[in-house]
Amino acid sequence: MRGEAISTQPIITLTTDFGLRGSFVSAMKGVILRINLNALIVDITHEIEPQNVLEASRVLGESYRYFPDGTIHICVVDPGVGSSRRPVVLHDGKHYFVGPDNGVFSKVITEADQRLRGYHITESRYFLPEVSSTFHGRDVFAPVAAWLSRWVSCGSFGDLISDFTVIPEEEPKKIDGGVEGKITHTDRFGNLITNISADLIEAEKHELSKDKLAVRVEGKDEAFDLYSFYNEAGEQNKTGALINSEGYLEIFFYRGSAQNKLGINVGAKVTLCSNNSFARQGEA
Amino acid sequence: MRGEAISTQPIITLTTDFGLRGSFVSAMKGVILRINLNALIVDITHEIEPQNVLEASRVLGESYRYFPDGTIHICVVDPGVGSSRRPVVLHDGKHYFVGPDNGVFSKVITEADQRLRGYHITESRYFLPEVSSTFHGRDVFAPVAAWLSRWVSCGSFGDLISDFTVIPEEEPKKIDGGVEGKITHTDRFGNLITNISADLIEAEKHELSKDKLAVRVEGKDEAFDLYSFYNEAGEQNKTGALINSEGYLEIFFYRGSAQNKLGINVGAKVTLCSNNSFARQGEA
Amino acid sequence: MRGEAISTQPIITLTTDFGLRGSFVSAMKGVILRINLNALIVDITHEIEPQNVLEASRVLGESYRYFPDGTIHICVVDPGVGSSRRPVVLHDGKHYFVGPDNGVFSKVITEADQRLRGYHITESRYFLPEVSSTFHGRDVFAPVAAWLSRWVSCGSFGDLISDFTVIPEEEPKKIDGGVEGKITHTDRFGNLITNISADLIEAEKHELSKDKLAVRVEGKDEAFDLYSFYNEAGEQNKTGALINSEGYLEIFFYRGSAQNKLGINVGAKVTLCSNNSFARQGEA
Repeated sequence: MRGEAISTQPIITLTTDFGLRGSFVSAMKGVILRINLNALIVDITHEIEPQNVLEASRVLGESYRYFPDGTIHICVVDPGVGSSRRPVVLHDGKHYFVGPDNGVFSKVITEADQRLRGYHITESRYFLPEVSSTFHGRDVFAPVAAWLSRWVSCGSFGDLISDFTVIPEEEPKKIDGGVEGKITHTDRFGNLITNISADLIEAEKHELSKDKLAVRVEGKDEAFDLYSFYNEAGEQNKTGALINSEGYLEIFFYRGSAQNKLGINVGAKVTLCSNNSFARQGEA
Repeated sequence: MRGEAISTQPIITLTTDFGLRGSFVSAMKGVILRINLNALIVDITHEIEPQNVLEASRVLGESYRYFPDGTIHICVVDPGVGSSRRPVVLHDGKHYFVGPDNGVFSKVITEADQRLRGYHITESRYFLPEVSSTFHGRDVFAPVAAWLSRWVSCGSFGDLISDFTVIPEEEPKKIDGGVEGKITHTDRFGNLITNISADLIEAEKHELSKDKLAVRVEGKDEAFDLYSFYNEAGEQNKTGALINSEGYLEIFFYRGSAQNKLGINVGAKVTLCSNNSFARQGEA
Repeated sequence: MRGEAISTQPIITLTTDFGLRGSFVSAMKGVILRINLNALIVDITHEIEPQNVLEASRVLGESYRYFPDGTIHICVVDPGVGSSRRPVVLHDGKHYFVGPDNGVFSKVITEADQRLRGYHITESRYFLPEVSSTFHGRDVFAPVAAWLSRWVSCGSFGDLISDFTVIPEEEPKKIDGGVEGKITHTDRFGNLITNISADLIEAEKHELSKDKLAVRVEGKDEAFDLYSFYNEAGEQNKTGALINSEGYLEIFFYRGSAQNKLGINVGAKVTLCSNNSFARQGEA
């Protein structure tokens, strides 16, 4: 991608578990626009499973880096709203993040590492005049993000802090003859996405000195071949695996739902092994 | 909230029962942008239950006041489209409203009271050249709102009227030892929201000279305590009640769905009473 | 519609089968905004049934013409992503279209006919630096559309081509005493929309020299009258037919779902015939 546009219009993204049925999301947008009519508001998603901070962390983590530098990302998945959990502003040198310090920024914090600066939001003059105890998205996070987009500096919202909440993720583990991970989530197509990364697969290929790897799913007899793209699995419906656009191993059923076809769900174990070792296991 | 931005870019919000699957919503947006490319279009929701004008009135009523002065709110929940029900433009001194006069603006009209001015939209030169008999959202309301955003005055669209359609809402009633209301709606979290307002609860507290009120739901043996925020109910799953961000009594199940947990639905009776009177009832 | 606004802010619309749950849609929006912060992004829909290119063609076909001239429409329903199916830019003289050449632009291509110019996207300098094999929406179509909105000419993306993929649609056929078509899709209200156009109905009226036509649905004994608008069918729930806002025959159940009421689905045969011929059939 050549020459990037200079960000004169500040972008504010929204990631919540509010859904689109009620007035929660639009109330937040109204609050932002009252403070900064020049803000460009972009929805990341409002379909995070209620209270699932890890899903919020993952979806935001997959999306934020595609936005221009200077973008402000609000994330409100906030079961502890009203309690002592801290509202925070984070800055990784390029992007800003506003929301509760409850793990929703786990991916962001891990990726930013030493570059991260974070502030505990306490300056109530940037909040709505009346702050409810159940909807800080509208009363705290939307106005703070809007003021941030009007060049109020991060440090104006409260003190610098450094002890952020990061929820650790379960990593795949080395097993005899391969790697064992699990299904972490699905998408609208019924693809089953794992926590086994492309890097891990590369390492495994090297170690086993084989070109041919196969994927096995807990409780299923068949092994699935690795393809480069969906269509490569052929015109007929066929189950296969590939490295998806986020760089993770994904199990798919061409033109159908692997989730429905295989009847497996998030949490199921997935093994990456050599075709041969799998064949031998089958014989045993 | 300090210093409000001056509205140079007109905002047009949309509230409909069209859903997001088809082309209804985007056709409206295209029509608006053809007339006023500077319009900033914001979705309030398109997930109003089909033909539910009261839900539309409530959701718009919860949301509109957060938008900047001068915002134009289109609402299209319109089972009578094509019949003699009147298309209207309303102005409450701050916000504009465009849609059918069928009750969708009940909350807005009630709140504006004497400040409201309304006009019967009849000037077809502001409509699309061909007006269908089933989609006035695209053919009438979108273009009228877009012309309004280009400073065509309200009175240009038709005659001043004053006999607006308001669908009255059922109010909670005083009963022996408390107040009886009902569940009016739910949200994506399964919270059960009632028509009992914070003001009513304050009055009740005063009357009963007690700090401790409890909430009882039709057909359930337990009484629920009043909390200040969700997390106050503790880390375990627990059912409680609180005043929500709209100022109404709400029954929740911490980190779960009260709707599923209690198995009750919209319309169920809810009683606010003193803990003691409840205990006595339990003993009887 | 009088005087059209001059398009200084380029509009980019999105039609996909990605749903709103994950990061697919927002990643595309981020990519667009990084290249052209002035782009106005409008969602047509992300709820196309997974891999249903014909539904994408229909929904885009119903919507694109309402947008200002110069609008760029991205459509990503792309089961063949990564394979040899061609990425294309199309221009019909007014609107631009970016997506896979797999039938998603069937309606657009048919309507544009001789006016259409199309280009095979091959110039990878307009893509993201790394192109995945499963998400060309983000890596190819979003950046190409964004560069197009910054006045890169169509021809810059690749060679002119003319052999576009058009998936032919089944047309209604003339039968004894009427016309036989079918239900092509439904909407959120449960209306049943057919492929019988207003033009066909006019022709039929003329041929039968009758004012009174009726509609019959496969497997149902009753014939439905033609109305001008929903409410005309009366206040009670009643099934009827009308010409909808897209100019097609539609079967509805007033204030309810015809789909649920009649228990019929997409694909069911629908006959338009004279009331008399229907009566005679009934007697036979």
